[in-house]
Amino acid sequence: MPAMRTKVADCLKKTAPGTIVDVRGWVRTRRESKQGFAFIELNDGSSFANLQIVADKSLPDYEELIKLVQTGASLAVTGELKESPAQGQKVELHARTLRVLGQADAAKYPLQKKGHSFEFLREKAHLRPRTNTFGAMARVRNAICDAIHRYFQDRGFLYIHAPIITTSDCEGAGHMFQVTTLDLAKLGQLQGSRSSEAGKPFEIDYTKDFFGKKAGLTVSGQLEGEIFACSVGDCYTFGPTFRAENSNTTRHLAEFWMIEPEMPFYELEDNMALAEDFVRSVIKNVLARCPDDLQFFNDRIEPTLLATLENISGHDFIKLTYTEAVEILLKSGQSFEYPVGWGKDLQSEHERFLTEKHFKQPVILTDYPREIKSFYMRANDDGKTVRAMDVLVPGIGEIIGGSQREERHEVLISRMQECGLNPADYWWYLELREYGTVPHSGFGLGLERTVQMITGMQNIRDCIPFPRTPKSADF
Amino acid sequence: MPAMRTKVADCLKKTAPGTIVDVRGWVRTRRESKQGFAFIELNDGSSFANLQIVADKSLPDYEELIKLVQTGASLAVTGELKESPAQGQKVELHARTLRVLGQADAAKYPLQKKGHSFEFLREKAHLRPRTNTFGAMARVRNAICDAIHRYFQDRGFLYIHAPIITTSDCEGAGHMFQVTTLDLAKLGQLQGSRSSEAGKPFEIDYTKDFFGKKAGLTVSGQLEGEIFACSVGDCYTFGPTFRAENSNTTRHLAEFWMIEPEMPFYELEDNMALAEDFVRSVIKNVLARCPDDLQFFNDRIEPTLLATLENISGHDFIKLTYTEAVEILLKSGQSFEYPVGWGKDLQSEHERFLTEKHFKQPVILTDYPREIKSFYMRANDDGKTVRAMDVLVPGIGEIIGGSQREERHEVLISRMQECGLNPADYWWYLELREYGTVPHSGFGLGLERTVQMITGMQNIRDCIPFPRTPKSADF
Repeated sequence: MPAMRTKVADCLKKTAPGTIVDVRGWVRTRRESKQGFAFIELNDGSSFANLQIVADKSLPDYEELIKLVQTGASLAVTGELKESPAQGQKVELHARTLRVLGQADAAKYPLQKKGHSFEFLREKAHLRPRTNTFGAMARVRNAICDAIHRYFQDRGFLYIHAPIITTSDCEGAGHMFQVTTLDLAKLGQLQGSRSSEAGKPFEIDYTKDFFGKKAGLTVSGQLEGEIFACSVGDCYTFGPTFRAENSNTTRHLAEFWMIEPEMPFYELEDNMALAEDFVRSVIKNVLARCPDDLQFFNDRIEPTLLATLENISGHDFIKLTYTEAVEILLKSGQSFEYPVGWGKDLQSEHERFLTEKHFKQPVILTDYPREIKSFYMRANDDGKTVRAMDVLVPGIGEIIGGSQREERHEVLISRMQECGLNPADYWWYLELREYGTVPHSGFGLGLERTVQMITGMQNIRDCIPFPRTPKSADF
Repeated sequence: MPAMRTKVADCLKKTAPGTIVDVRGWVRTRRESKQGFAFIELNDGSSFANLQIVADKSLPDYEELIKLVQTGASLAVTGELKESPAQGQKVELHARTLRVLGQADAAKYPLQKKGHSFEFLREKAHLRPRTNTFGAMARVRNAICDAIHRYFQDRGFLYIHAPIITTSDCEGAGHMFQVTTLDLAKLGQLQGSRSSEAGKPFEIDYTKDFFGKKAGLTVSGQLEGEIFACSVGDCYTFGPTFRAENSNTTRHLAEFWMIEPEMPFYELEDNMALAEDFVRSVIKNVLARCPDDLQFFNDRIEPTLLATLENISGHDFIKLTYTEAVEILLKSGQSFEYPVGWGKDLQSEHERFLTEKHFKQPVILTDYPREIKSFYMRANDDGKTVRAMDVLVPGIGEIIGGSQREERHEVLISRMQECGLNPADYWWYLELREYGTVPHSGFGLGLERTVQMITGMQNIRDCIPFPRTPKSADF
C-alpha cells in the first residue's frame, strides 16, 4: 500500500487519537459553515461509517478549495485524528493539508441525492458501489465468499475448477447458452453447411467450430466434481453457472455463482449434517465480520433480517421426508395457488409455508419422488423415491439442493434410460461407477440466493455486481 | 464427515500408533505373498503418500477377498495403526475388517500400469486425479488458490466478481467467443434477419438474441475491477477468462482463470511492490503447505523446480525499464529468433534471456512504448512510454502484466482515439474519470501459468482439471 495511507476503517477503530494520518477517499457529503469551516464525510469503502473531516480557514486558499469539495469528489487529506465531541463517532480528522484529486461536477454527478431507486442504480452499476447500500453489499458479499472458502479449506476440502465451456449437459438438454466462433452472418456460406431451400433450416457443420462440436456454458459443475470426489476426496467448486431461461423475476439470473461440494463416503445423513453446519457457520461468520453492514440492511432494507439470521444460525434444522411434508401441507387448511399432492414438485409457496409458518425454522426435506428429480440421485429401495435433499430457510425458501449420488453402475444406467438419456453420452460418468465406485454425496448452493438471504435484499439483481438477465448485459 | 472415518493424511501424521481407525480409499497397488498375507497401498487423496495396509488370513474369506483387491478398487478397512518395520513409512494399518466397496476389473481399468503418457491421461481426465501426478496437481492447485485468497483477504481486499458474459471488450475487438441463444440452424428464417442473395452474409438481428445485443465471453475483468477500486477500495477478481485464439501451444488455453487485483491510490511503484510481495508470498505458502507434492514434482517432472522456487521467493526482484532491457539485449551478443529493437514487443525468448541468463532472478520491466500497450495504461510525460509493468520469472517468462491506469479524463479519451477505439463505447469507464477520479493501478496473474511455475509441468493442459483448447472440450 502507498507508504503513508491509513484506511478509514483503521482511523475509526485502530488508530489512536493524536496520530497524524493520511487518508484518501470520496466525499459523501459536505456541510459548510459561514464561520469559515466545513465538515466533510469521507468514505473509502473500508467501512460502512464515514470519517468526518474538519476543514477550516487555516488551509491555504480555503474558500476556493472548499467549493471543489463536492459529493463524489476524491480527496487526499492529512491531519490529526482527534476525539470527536459529536455523537455517533469517536474520532474526527482535523485537516492540515487537503488536496482534491478528482472533482465531481455537482450539476452532472448522478448520485447527488440520497434515496435513488434500485432500478435507477442498476443503470449506474459503475457508480452504485459508492452508495451506502452497495458498499455494504460489496463487503458482505466478500465476507460470504471468504467464509465459504474458509469453511471448506479448514476441513481439508480441495477447491477445484469445473469447466465453464462444455460439450455435455448435466441436467439434461435445454436452457444452455451456445458458445461459438462461427461467423453467424456467413453460416450459409460455410463449407459443409447445407441450405436445402431458401429459408429452410441449415445443417450446421460443427467440425468447423472452435471446439469441433456444439458447445455451451455449464449449468452445473457437479458431474465433474464427482470425478474429484472419487479420486482426491472431499472437494468443492466455486464458479459461474448459467441458465438461458427467459425468467424475469426477482429470484433468477442468467449468470450466477454456485458452490458445489462433493464428498466420497458421505451418505445422505452425512450430507445433511454438512449442509446444515455449513449454512449456520457462514451466517455466524458474516454476522461477526460485518455487524455495521448487516445492521444497515436490517434498519433500511428488511426489518426482520437479523432475527431471521439468528433463527437460522441458532436452531437445529428440522428434518423430514417429502412424503411427511406433503401430509402437513394437505392437512394445513391453507389455500395455495398450486395444488399439493404426492408426486408433484413443491412450489416456493409450499416451501415457505413449511419453513416460515409451520416450523418457523430451517427445514431439510428428503426422499423426493424419483419422477421429479434428476437421474443421478440414489434410488431408494421403495422404488418410488430418491435420496434427494432440499434445505429450506425462512425468508428465501430453497437455498440448497443436493443428494446422495447413485453409485451403482447398473441402477444408474437404468435411471438414465428412464429419464430418456443416452448412457453413451455419459461414458466417463459411468466409468466412475465401473472402477472403484464408492457411496458419495454433494449439494449446490447458489451464491446470490445466499447473498439475498444474508442481506435481505428483495431483488437478486442487486446481489451481484453486474447482473445478466434477459435483454440486459451492460457493463 | 461420516462418523468413524480417518483420512490417510491423518493416519500418517496425526494419529497415534495403537489407535483403531476406519479408512476408505482406492487401491494403488497390491503385493500378495504366498504365506497368506498381502500389502495394499491405499490412497484417498488427502496426501501424496499411501497408507500401507497389511491384510492376512485372519480376515474371513481372505483368499476370495484378496482377489478383488485390484488396482483401482475402493476399500473400507478398519484395523490398528502400528509402527511399521518397513523403510519410508512410520505406520501401517493391520486390517481387522476389509470391505471391497467397488471393484475394478484388472482387464479393463485404464490406469493399470505406471508411466502413462500425459497425452493418454488427458483423454482419461475423469481418472487422472487418481495418479500420483494429478493427485499432487489437485492439492497444489488448491493450495495456490487458497494462498491467493488468503493473501488478499488478510490485507482487506474485497473479492469481487466481474461478469463472464459481456457486451463490451476490454482489450479491443477480436478473439472473443460469442454467446447466443439464437437457433443457428434457423437464422435465415428469423424475422428481421435479411439474406440478400443465396450464399451471401446475413444481417443478424441481435434484438432477438437473449441479451438483445451481440454478447461474448469476457477476456478480462479489469475494467469492471476498476469500478470497485474507485468506490470500495482495494479489490481483486478471481474468475474464468477466455481467448478464442487458435493457439495450439503448451502455454495457451481457451479457458483459463485470472486473478486481477486493482487498487486505488497505488502508483506504479506501489503496484510493483505488491506484485513482488504477492508472488513471493504465494510461493512460500505453497512450499510450506505441500512439501511432499513439490518434492515429487522436483524428483519426477522438473529437477530445477525447488531451486527455482527458492530463487523466486528468496530474492528481491530486479526492476528496470523496457528501454534499459532493450539495451541489455542489444549488447548481449545473443542471437535471437525475433529481432530486438526499441518499439518492438519483447518475445518469450528475450524475457527468458533477461530473467534466466542475464539476471538469473525475477525481473520487473516497466515503462513500455505506448504503441505496443493498451489504451488504459497511464501515459508518461516523455510522450513515448506508458506506466506498464511485466513481471518475468525464471522458467516461465512473463507471469504478471499490469500498469498504473490512466486516470486523466482528457488523456484517456485521446489515447482511445489513438488506439482506434470509440470513447462512446466506454462511457462508464470514462465516467470513473469524470467523477472523483483517483490514481490507481492493478495487474493480472494467470492461474494456470502460476500452477505451471510452481509444479514445473511442461504443458499448461495438465495444470487445469479440464483443459479447453482448439477442437477439444471433452468432459
